[in-house]
Amino acid sequence: MLRDWQSVRAEVLRRIHARDWKPGEMIPNEADLAAEFGCARSTVNRALRDIAQSGLLDRRRKAGTRVASNPAARATLTIPVMREEIEGTGRKYGYQLLSRSTEIPPVAESAAMQLPPDGTLLHIRALHLADDRPFALENRWIDPGVVPGVADAHFERISANEWLLQNAAYTHGEIAFSATVAGPADAPLLGCAAGAPLFVTERLTWDTTRAVTRVRILFAPGYQMRTGL
Amino acid sequence: MLRDWQSVRAEVLRRIHARDWKPGEMIPNEADLAAEFGCARSTVNRALRDIAQSGLLDRRRKAGTRVASNPAARATLTIPVMREEIEGTGRKYGYQLLSRSTEIPPVAESAAMQLPPDGTLLHIRALHLADDRPFALENRWIDPGVVPGVADAHFERISANEWLLQNAAYTHGEIAFSATVAGPADAPLLGCAAGAPLFVTERLTWDTTRAVTRVRILFAPGYQMRTGL
Repeated sequence: MLRDWQSVRAEVLRRIHARDWKPGEMIPNEADLAAEFGCARSTVNRALRDIAQSGLLDRRRKAGTRVASNPAARATLTIPVMREEIEGTGRKYGYQLLSRSTEIPPVAESAAMQLPPDGTLLHIRALHLADDRPFALENRWIDPGVVPGVADAHFERISANEWLLQNAAYTHGEIAFSATVAGPADAPLLGCAAGAPLFVTERLTWDTTRAVTRVRILFAPGYQMRTGL
Repeated sequence: MLRDWQSVRAEVLRRIHARDWKPGEMIPNEADLAAEFGCARSTVNRALRDIAQSGLLDRRRKAGTRVASNPAARATLTIPVMREEIEGTGRKYGYQLLSRSTEIPPVAESAAMQLPPDGTLLHIRALHLADDRPFALENRWIDPGVVPGVADAHFERISANEWLLQNAAYTHGEIAFSATVAGPADAPLLGCAAGAPLFVTERLTWDTTRAVTRVRILFAPGYQMRTGL
């Protein structure tokens, strides 16, 4: 007997993953499952709705419930601040501000941040180190109009990465991962040869309708981002 | 008045993101929040527990609840089968089996799959195309002892990616993302120059304690994996 909807969910997931219920197949109706599990029909309903949200089940009002034909795998990425990512692996964190200036950004930046092309932004370049070796190169633009107090932040001892997390409001964001090669200017900073393959994250953070910050992080060669499925 | 725990959660998240409640700060206790929101204390408790699970709040039995000092950003990645990823962007999907053989894998593969180094595995190499252009190169090892029927699957018309999703049971997996450069053998298959930067995913799938399949996918230059935060 399965008492709560979480137990029903676990059993349903087990059957899907074990392919007892195969992709594309109909599953028994809620009344039959409730009888089999010895629980209320509403408990089964709650569990199936939860699984449908994750995309593993297709529920149709009249036609019943099917296992999704090609369920997409879902993975949750946890993206800590750089210092905690490094310290979390037992290494010593280091930080070096390379430059801090107020500039008109390249058009690609202002366009992504939906800002007029002639406005100025705060531009930060910094290096994050793990055990004294280059770990990642941060290239960041911040809209000072959206982040009160940022004009007085020097980012000499605390990274913009960490300062913003403490001080800037945000509602949502977008993140993209890709690969690039180290250019001749970045390679020596990252301690690698020009042309070495680099993992890149690009992140754009919004406060409701206004872009807060856009950052491009180049990770030194060998970096892997890992998670469970 | 906030009636349900989901509404309480939304309001608490809003205050955290707006920095009304700043990272590291104590938040009001449950009784005070319940009075303010006009709901039961158990409703507040349910909402705070949910947020604590995501890492945004630190709850201590005696000391009360604080906003996490450096809350990690969390992003959910949806990883569909290659065909749906390509068709989902309005492009035509193409598939080409490059090779299918039974081999003793490199030691790195058998070690990752926790198999004896002298066992044989099914080895599949295939190309996925978008609008007739190379999209990704798949290099996959499958343990036929764990996947019934795989010995009879030819993978000439349906990719192992899709066939396994339909036919192989699994319980959990691991995925890693990194960058590499195109080697001289892979570059012509991917339609790029040797040395071009490639985004890589490596995925290892388990059925309880047995590895089902390990796959390395090299994406053609320019590929980005994107998600919301």
